[in-house]
This record gives sequence, structure tokens and C-alpha cells, in this order.
Amino acid sequence: MADVDIVFIGAGNLATHLAKALFANGFRVLQVYSRTEESARALAECVNSRWTTHLSEVLTTDALYIVSLKDDALLQLLPRIVAGRERSLLVHTAGSIPMSVWEQGATRYGVLYPLQTFSKSKEVDFGEIPFFIEANSAGDAELLATVARRLSSKLFFVDSEKRRSLHLSAVFACNFTNHLYALAAELLEKQGLPFDVLLPLIDETARKVHTLTPQEAQTGPAVRYDEQVIGKHLQLLEETPELQHIYQTLSQSIHALSLKSKDKP
Amino acid sequence: MADVDIVFIGAGNLATHLAKALFANGFRVLQVYSRTEESARALAECVNSRWTTHLSEVLTTDALYIVSLKDDALLQLLPRIVAGRERSLLVHTAGSIPMSVWEQGATRYGVLYPLQTFSKSKEVDFGEIPFFIEANSAGDAELLATVARRLSSKLFFVDSEKRRSLHLSAVFACNFTNHLYALAAELLEKQGLPFDVLLPLIDETARKVHTLTPQEAQTGPAVRYDEQVIGKHLQLLEETPELQHIYQTLSQSIHALSLKSKDKP
Repeated sequence: MADVDIVFIGAGNLATHLAKALFANGFRVLQVYSRTEESARALAECVNSRWTTHLSEVLTTDALYIVSLKDDALLQLLPRIVAGRERSLLVHTAGSIPMSVWEQGATRYGVLYPLQTFSKSKEVDFGEIPFFIEANSAGDAELLATVARRLSSKLFFVDSEKRRSLHLSAVFACNFTNHLYALAAELLEKQGLPFDVLLPLIDETARKVHTLTPQEAQTGPAVRYDEQVIGKHLQLLEETPELQHIYQTLSQSIHALSLKSKDKP
Repeated sequence: MADVDIVFIGAGNLATHLAKALFANGFRVLQVYSRTEESARALAECVNSRWTTHLSEVLTTDALYIVSLKDDALLQLLPRIVAGRERSLLVHTAGSIPMSVWEQGATRYGVLYPLQTFSKSKEVDFGEIPFFIEANSAGDAELLATVARRLSSKLFFVDSEKRRSLHLSAVFACNFTNHLYALAAELLEKQGLPFDVLLPLIDETARKVHTLTPQEAQTGPAVRYDEQVIGKHLQLLEETPELQHIYQTLSQSIHALSLKSKDKP
């Protein structure tokens, strides 16, 4: 096992969970940087490391630097992160930012992208989470794999283009899905019904696609485009044209996909 | 405990799971009707009952009749189901059909609507599933509650209008959500990536709304309408204008909802 020490640039949700998991698996976290003292200190205390709120005070070592910042902050701070650390391995954790951003100055760089949604208050089990790895040398890709393998058995080496598609598909499967939960919650609230009543359905919908493809799992009025039911639903949504539009768009898309699959031999 | 015997009209996924659960909890199923012998026989064997494929052969008893047919079949067969059973309690299980359909001839009637998605091949634990009950008399509402309580602790008495909204919200939280999984699967397939990599994310997205509201749980580029990321995603979807439209519609809706919540005091 490679003896890798780690510096975290960023202390958001992803950085926090990843740092804690690495620490719990025997890695040393040398330092945590965050713009705000509260975040830097909180994470540093969890992983028994130093912390700073000044980029200029970030250590210059041969550690692995895991940079987990918001996309725009990453791009803005990148030159200062690279400066003086040209011989360190620098990686970011962003789904939609290509590895090539590091080309401005870095010599050893890559990406370590765990595909998951992280909330500060919820513990995360990394064991099942897929890590997508990219590096500008085979040696560093292997080094990142050695690190990730301590947390998860699901490692994939993918290039930046594939990772961007992954991120896009995650927006559909997570952000958009969650938004449908939010819209359903609004509909129930109007009727004075608690959101809780949907949880068994939400859970089962997620569970089903562990054993069936999403297409096999599909049910409901849109599959056969049941005009009776759909018409009444659209009527119920009359006062919220935005929801009506979403309902119609998704119903048509479900129906189109179901026709497409019937055409297949 | 009321000693209720049950006749099932219909042997689809919902009827099958419900009948099995009732049988397992001590109820007698007297008979199963289905249009097809295969379905009728299969379910009857599970619940140790008689079966028939002829509506004219359905028993005329004072049992509880649970009618679980597709919406259009229910409406079409309803007069023949009611005929000769004017003194039996007749209920359907459909989210979007009002109780008033029974007014054509029935005297004791209602609705027993378990809010869940049922697949033939997947076992169902009714313990957590909410049942929505409606009847045209307080006595029969209580009788239905007595039956449902043997399966679940989550009973609600709701009228047909509320039930229709429930069904609509379930379309958002289940059918539409599942479709987003399907679209994500398509995106991954194009990149040669397995759908499996999304499962931990899908599970966590569902889990999160057990402890956070969907709005609190929301993350991703649409919340702050990150034009950089959104623009690149739309570009990735250039060859599939339908997906592009869905992406744009849902992103705008997420952003609008996040602005709305900020306006709140």
C-alpha cells in the first residue's frame, strides 16, 4: 500500500465525507484549507489535521492534493493552487470539469470523482460508491486507484468526456428526480396531505431498478398514453401551467420510449 | 375483528399482492375472477380459493368484493359486477376513479387504495404502505379500516378528490422519476457505461427525503442556475432535442422553486 498523505483544498460536503472516510481508513490528512474558518476548523478537527483559511499558507509538500471546491472557485483559484506545487499530484473531484484545466502549470494531475450526492448531516457509506479516476500518467492513475480502493471496490478509469456524461446522467437521476419529489410534495401540501405518504412508493421505485431495467419497471398512465387519466391530471394542474407542461412533456417522453422499445425485435 | 371473506375481481399485480397479504393475515379469499385463466388460476392457487374466468360465475355472497381492474375494464364491467350484489360491499382500488362510479346500482361501496407500485415478480411489505379508504357509510369505512389495519398501520380516510391528487403526485414521484432513471440509463449506454453505477446515487436520493424536505435536499447546477454547467449539458444533448427540452424545463423549474423559497420569510 502506498503511503500517501493528503491535503484537502475545500471543506464542503464532498470534501468532508471523503476526508473523514480516508482518515478512518488510515490516511493522514496533513491540512485542510477552506475560505471560512468554521468549515476549515470543523473538518480539521474530524481528521486530526491542521487547517488554514489562507491559500498562501497551504503546505507545499509531495502530498496528494484533493481539491474539492465549487466549479467557479476551482477555476478561479487554480493558478494559485498549482503555483509551487508543480511536483505534487493535484486532483479535483468535479464531474463536469475536464482534467485539462490542470494543464496550466501542473505536471502531475488528475481527477477523483465519487458519484454520489453528499449532504453535510448524512453519513455516507463509500463502500458502494463508484469512483471515476483519471490522471495524466499511468502511475498516478494507479496511485489514485490505490487510494480509492481503500474506500470502495467500484473503480472506473474514464476520460473527461465520459465523466461529463456521467455527471449529466446524475443530474437526471438525482437532481431532477429530487425535483419531482419536490413537485409531488407541493401537490400533496395543497390537499393537506403529508409528504411521508409517498416515501414507500419513492423507496420502491428506487429499489425496483436494482432488479429491473427502468423501462421494464415503468407503469402508470403514460406508458399506453391513457388519455382519460392524463386528461384529468392535466385538468387538476390547470392553475399551475408550469407543472402542466412538465406533466405533458414527461408523459409524452414515456410514451415515446415505450413505443421505441416495442419496435425493437 | 370482523370476519370478512373476500372475492377478488381482477388478478393483476395489485390484486395479487393484496390478496396474498390478506390471505397471509388470516382472511379467506372465496374466489378470484380474471379474464385469463392463467392469472385467475395462479392467484387462486396462492390464496387457496376458487377461480373463474366468467363474470357470470362470480359468487353472489355478502363477502367484500375487491375490484382491481384496469380503469377502463372497471368502468366497462361495473354494471355486471354490481348486478345481483346490491347488498354486498363493493370496493375498487384505483387512484384516479371516483367512488361515485358505484352509484350506478350499488348500495354499499367504497375504495381501498394502497399507494404503491406493484410488480409481479417483487415481494411487497404492506406494513409501511399507506392505505386510503373511502366508503359511502361510516360503518363500511370502519369495516374497510379493520381489513386494512391487518396489513398496515398507515390508514387515511380521504375523499375522491384528494385521492386523485394523491394519484397525480404518485405519477410525479414514481412514474416520472422512473422515466428519469430510464433517460439516465440511455445517456450512460451511449458512453458504454453500465446503469449500475447510478444505483448508490438513486438510493441516496430516495433516502435523503426521509430526513430532509425535497427542497432542502436539492443540489446540482440548476439550484443557482449555473449557466456554465447547464450550457455544457445542453450541448451534450444537442442530438436529442427531446432530452434537451426536458433538461431545460426541469432546470428552470428547480431554479424557480429555489427562488420562491428564498422569498419566504
